[in-house]
Amino acid sequence: MQRLFKNINEWKIIQDEIEIKENRLAESIMSIGNGYMGMRGNYEEYYSKDSHRGSYIAGIWYPDKTRVGWWKNGYPEYFGKVPNSVNFIGIDIYINGKQLDLAKFKIKSFYRELDMKNGVLSRKFTVDVDGYEIEASVTRFLSIVTKELGTIKYDIKALNFSGEVMFVPYLDSNVKNEDSNYEENFWVNLESNSNENYGNIVCRTKENIFNTEIFTVCAAMGIKSSKKPKEVTFKNKEYYSSNTIVLDIEKDETVGIEKYVAITTTRDYNENELIEVANKILVNEISKGYETILKEQCNAWNKRWESADINIRGNQFAQQGIRYNLFQLFSTYYGDDARLNIGPKGFTGEKYGGATYWDTEAYCLSLYLATTNKEIGKNLLTYRHNQLQQAKDNAKQLGLSGALYPMVTFNGVECHNEWEITFEEIHRNASMVYAIYNYTTYNSDNSYIKEKGIDIIVEVARFWESRVHYSPRKEMYMIHGVTGPNEYENNVNNNWYTNYMAKWCLEYACENIEMLKIECPEAIDRNHVTIEESSNWLNIAQKMYLPYDKDLDIFVQHDTYLDKEFIKVNELSKENLPLNQNWSWDKILRSCFIKQADVLQGIYYFSERFSKEQIKKNFDFYEMYTVHESSLSACIYSIIASKVDNLDKAYELYSRAARLDLDNYNNDTEDGLHITSMSGAWLCIVHGFAGMKVLGNKLHFEPKLPNNLQGYSFNINYRDTTLNIEVDEELVNIKNTGDKSVEINLYGQDYNLEDKIQVSLYKISNNAESNA
Amino acid sequence: MQRLFKNINEWKIIQDEIEIKENRLAESIMSIGNGYMGMRGNYEEYYSKDSHRGSYIAGIWYPDKTRVGWWKNGYPEYFGKVPNSVNFIGIDIYINGKQLDLAKFKIKSFYRELDMKNGVLSRKFTVDVDGYEIEASVTRFLSIVTKELGTIKYDIKALNFSGEVMFVPYLDSNVKNEDSNYEENFWVNLESNSNENYGNIVCRTKENIFNTEIFTVCAAMGIKSSKKPKEVTFKNKEYYSSNTIVLDIEKDETVGIEKYVAITTTRDYNENELIEVANKILVNEISKGYETILKEQCNAWNKRWESADINIRGNQFAQQGIRYNLFQLFSTYYGDDARLNIGPKGFTGEKYGGATYWDTEAYCLSLYLATTNKEIGKNLLTYRHNQLQQAKDNAKQLGLSGALYPMVTFNGVECHNEWEITFEEIHRNASMVYAIYNYTTYNSDNSYIKEKGIDIIVEVARFWESRVHYSPRKEMYMIHGVTGPNEYENNVNNNWYTNYMAKWCLEYACENIEMLKIECPEAIDRNHVTIEESSNWLNIAQKMYLPYDKDLDIFVQHDTYLDKEFIKVNELSKENLPLNQNWSWDKILRSCFIKQADVLQGIYYFSERFSKEQIKKNFDFYEMYTVHESSLSACIYSIIASKVDNLDKAYELYSRAARLDLDNYNNDTEDGLHITSMSGAWLCIVHGFAGMKVLGNKLHFEPKLPNNLQGYSFNINYRDTTLNIEVDEELVNIKNTGDKSVEINLYGQDYNLEDKIQVSLYKISNNAESNA
Repeated sequence: MQRLFKNINEWKIIQDEIEIKENRLAESIMSIGNGYMGMRGNYEEYYSKDSHRGSYIAGIWYPDKTRVGWWKNGYPEYFGKVPNSVNFIGIDIYINGKQLDLAKFKIKSFYRELDMKNGVLSRKFTVDVDGYEIEASVTRFLSIVTKELGTIKYDIKALNFSGEVMFVPYLDSNVKNEDSNYEENFWVNLESNSNENYGNIVCRTKENIFNTEIFTVCAAMGIKSSKKPKEVTFKNKEYYSSNTIVLDIEKDETVGIEKYVAITTTRDYNENELIEVANKILVNEISKGYETILKEQCNAWNKRWESADINIRGNQFAQQGIRYNLFQLFSTYYGDDARLNIGPKGFTGEKYGGATYWDTEAYCLSLYLATTNKEIGKNLLTYRHNQLQQAKDNAKQLGLSGALYPMVTFNGVECHNEWEITFEEIHRNASMVYAIYNYTTYNSDNSYIKEKGIDIIVEVARFWESRVHYSPRKEMYMIHGVTGPNEYENNVNNNWYTNYMAKWCLEYACENIEMLKIECPEAIDRNHVTIEESSNWLNIAQKMYLPYDKDLDIFVQHDTYLDKEFIKVNELSKENLPLNQNWSWDKILRSCFIKQADVLQGIYYFSERFSKEQIKKNFDFYEMYTVHESSLSACIYSIIASKVDNLDKAYELYSRAARLDLDNYNNDTEDGLHITSMSGAWLCIVHGFAGMKVLGNKLHFEPKLPNNLQGYSFNINYRDTTLNIEVDEELVNIKNTGDKSVEINLYGQDYNLEDKIQVSLYKISNNAESNA
Repeated sequence: MQRLFKNINEWKIIQDEIEIKENRLAESIMSIGNGYMGMRGNYEEYYSKDSHRGSYIAGIWYPDKTRVGWWKNGYPEYFGKVPNSVNFIGIDIYINGKQLDLAKFKIKSFYRELDMKNGVLSRKFTVDVDGYEIEASVTRFLSIVTKELGTIKYDIKALNFSGEVMFVPYLDSNVKNEDSNYEENFWVNLESNSNENYGNIVCRTKENIFNTEIFTVCAAMGIKSSKKPKEVTFKNKEYYSSNTIVLDIEKDETVGIEKYVAITTTRDYNENELIEVANKILVNEISKGYETILKEQCNAWNKRWESADINIRGNQFAQQGIRYNLFQLFSTYYGDDARLNIGPKGFTGEKYGGATYWDTEAYCLSLYLATTNKEIGKNLLTYRHNQLQQAKDNAKQLGLSGALYPMVTFNGVECHNEWEITFEEIHRNASMVYAIYNYTTYNSDNSYIKEKGIDIIVEVARFWESRVHYSPRKEMYMIHGVTGPNEYENNVNNNWYTNYMAKWCLEYACENIEMLKIECPEAIDRNHVTIEESSNWLNIAQKMYLPYDKDLDIFVQHDTYLDKEFIKVNELSKENLPLNQNWSWDKILRSCFIKQADVLQGIYYFSERFSKEQIKKNFDFYEMYTVHESSLSACIYSIIASKVDNLDKAYELYSRAARLDLDNYNNDTEDGLHITSMSGAWLCIVHGFAGMKVLGNKLHFEPKLPNNLQGYSFNINYRDTTLNIEVDEELVNIKNTGDKSVEINLYGQDYNLEDKIQVSLYKISNNAESNA
């Protein structure tokens, strides 16, 4: 754990002093985004020390070539990546001719805050630029009202001199990805233009040998000065466009500029319209003025918080953590565009390439279902339905039937090329179906299944049917050669989670076929499902082999897992951790150590099917060997710990999930934030502490309160109404703030909730053990 | 199977007509080499259709960058490759100004032969070049007397015209590898010079980010014309140097040139001496004259055949096959340089990068031990001893003790980067020790062990000690996470072969420690072996888990192999084969199909430890599921088939081994020849049909004769004498052609062989089943 910013505020991330050594970590944490684009917390002005500059535009990607596994059929040939895009925040500053550089001059004070309530990043600092002391105030935001818009206000006050300040706002497309395999530039400059108070650049992603989609991006900037400039010149060259604005400054005077940037792309417009559209946006926004658009931004963010905020009492770390997660998650995706999805690092770094993983379905969907409107959840499902053909192609390429959704993708085509992941981590397919189940049960609405969902459900069932094999020796169906969610093992046989989920997918397909026979036969016909086919699915499901150990009374991660050498995580000396930075891949693979929930992921999905004792045995066993080196791990363990009344552990793991990046738990936040796992903190509270789950078409709660908290409350959207759940040290209050009554179940008791109910908080009895 | 050249000759490979469509296959088959360098069977003159031009120089390699597994520690970062080097055979030909191109003009006759007895490649063809009919005779060889020398004689006879012939002999370093990951050129041109009848080029491998060794290569050519030229000009530019020689020609006259090329490299000389040394060689060789050096070449090859030839009676296909294998193997390596080794494709293609694999120890060493002098075998062992430090570094990088020899290497550093191979295919380590055992027992000479071998034996034992783990459940030592010789499975647990070999390595280490205690205590001290250490090795060996199935009474390939779905190879329809070209890697991995001998490899190494019945059960079982898609597979199966008297199968598999490339069994010879597996055909005859093996310090024979042969005979060098073994349909004759008597065992009977013995051939009784 490494907490960079120690000044804790429940609504803000506060940086009290400049960070040179851990600048990349600070840049990751101070990232902002608006779902359409985003960027790391880089400085506007020149900075000469280590920094990782990055701006990214949603949905724009590039196939970075790599070659491996050359004689093995079916390998994808590239890694898809979100290219680092035009640097549009840049403003070089010169004070009486000296270039401002926070790495070089004496800083007298420095303050930066990320205001999560309003979606604004601002800085204030005093610096002695070779004798000229200035105070700078810089504010930046990416608008969630006009998605193409980014705005910067950069003001400078002369503290001990009079003279001139030169502002050089620019656009720069000569940018590379640090993780480019071969130091390639992914962009071709088409044009760059400049004018007084104006500039633009148009760039296109390079043609490539894989013939993937080409994108063109236009960035246009408009500049407003706080006073009439002494001189304005402008420049443009390949990949670059700038203005140079010289302003006189008197001692104690503040001067500055506003930089408005509009980003348009061929995802929305024809290439030849890009400049025109961007210009129109600029004219419109500049005419509104900075204060107005800032106010719009604040209002829009405040509205998001109204429905989604989680309030935590008695623990500001936990409070800040959960808000930070919601803020960054919504900055990455708010569901407006069904062509987009949620990248594991969002717009905050290059790693994981900004692509779509199963994280969305497994970890994020529940949050969007409960905190945003129904359409947003549906958009996430539709994204996958739009890519069904590619998933069918993918299965076919492997010689299998049905559809195999990719492990990593931008456009539905698999674009990660390690065979142990792409060919074997097939459990992801089940989460595509689980997401449909989740959406359907949460909303009590079969319409999506009828319209689209069944197509996926059927093709995934077909996939499993072709991927299992029958073992005459065991008289069971098996699934060999898989990688479970625990990526610290590969190519294992009969991973319990995978087999369990495959079995469930087959059963769920049959259930839905039965339902559709009555409600929507067309959906069955459309998918050409025969009685023979679905009865074979049931047969396989019934004879699916699920490894279980009698002595330990646990589900076994996979066939030979228990033959390993067992060492507990807490017996490992610290220098081994994190394993992925200290051990060879070989050593990790052979060890008993688990990266993230595997058996427990299945228990989380279907906890109602297991007794509390069963869950506890599995939790106690696997928890000993789990290193949580996936950002997706702690939340699931926390939820299960809540379920088995191990609330100290649940809280410990919640902290880890909620403050993973703020406290840099996995020692890799410098590469970017763990965006998709941020929903995990929300899950810990809502599914974990509050025990929320839809069962038998009713919303169940089982609220508990860890010792380290005095209480928590949150809102959820549920079936056309809004519920507020509030838990304190004694009581549970559930309010229906809408005007439609709902059936709920609290602590096993059914209620028809019209207004509100209040019951005593469940207290853990003494004989419930705690492992903490 | 695809037999390109149907005219079979026992000493020659004969091509009767030009091959346009399968030109790459023809080029592979017509490869020549001299251990120092080699080349594919490209034409000297311009050829406008598909061709894969390639010349390679032994020991010169380049680290071609690739990136994968970016977050996994211990991955090598590059694939090492032998760069395609200077094209030095090139001679462009113009007949009255028209460029000769066999792809373009009408060919009236075409004949090419690879004369294996003499090591010479020649062509004769008649072609109508736009009305000018010529007969060309071209001879080329790479000298095994002066390793730096390559020579070409190119003659042209005018059949229906008088006029002029222009010869443009050139050197061209502007060459690329087709398998370069990023279409990079690996060479930098340092200089190129030309003069009348002379030219040179000096090139250096590019600096690279991995800081591996840089090599410089100089090619110098000298030209002699058959008559005084009408005109000679010369040219040189970057990467290119040429002469243009115009000769008058009368109808029915033959004119031509001789091109002498000397290749020198910084492997042997300083960079600034390269041209001088090459020139000296040229002067010397040219003064000898073409006929003399050709004669030297023939004599030297004839001498090799005297000791190594295998004579086969009654089957010219088999006869040609075995000679072709010996020819290509000796063209690749003849043991003169302990810094070199035997690349799986030798100098005949790019694939497998010309690097060193375990093939050398497992398949080639036995042949060199028996057919060349003792020093050559020792050189192969010394190669690995020289690289012990790199093997120790490799183990350390994985967090293990001792030494792990690389799967693929040029200089001892692992240079292949698939984790399932580099981290897991660790059985290779045992073959390093087996090679020492093989050398030692064949020669009855412990001196190598004392001097060097024990260092490897000890470090490999240390490796196994750290790589096993104890399973309390099974109370056995296990080895998890390995890839056996069968690369159609990965990351399996308790691969029988690996465990068996590890056990043997540990036992063999202890045996040698005991021997050295008495004979050479210094060797123990030097390696700091304690009694505790070696007794722990014995303990592990004793408790090594070796999977065995009671019902089938076979050794099990690995823990869960028998849970698979079993389909016999002969039940697969043809379009599935070869699997590696028709199935996805995923499907292959999960299947029961075996690429090459795995359990049987262990049985081959230690056949004396198993009963004939045991061997038969294992053979019969595994043979059903083996697709032999490794070129190293058929030979081992053939040997085991001989052992269990299944001679039809043994012959069938021998044919596949012996004519793998001539008949293009694996449909990939166009990429290059399977050099290391060529020793397999020799093994089939000597270890298989003749049943030769050293046991209890005595050479044993168990000769058998497959139905398809009338007899076979071969010589072997053995302990300072030479034996000739001759088998016909009735008799076995073993002659000692040296003057030292040797102890041998024939059909279980001991002999002190001074002159010769003759016994009746063993005939398979009727109740010995045959699977054929």
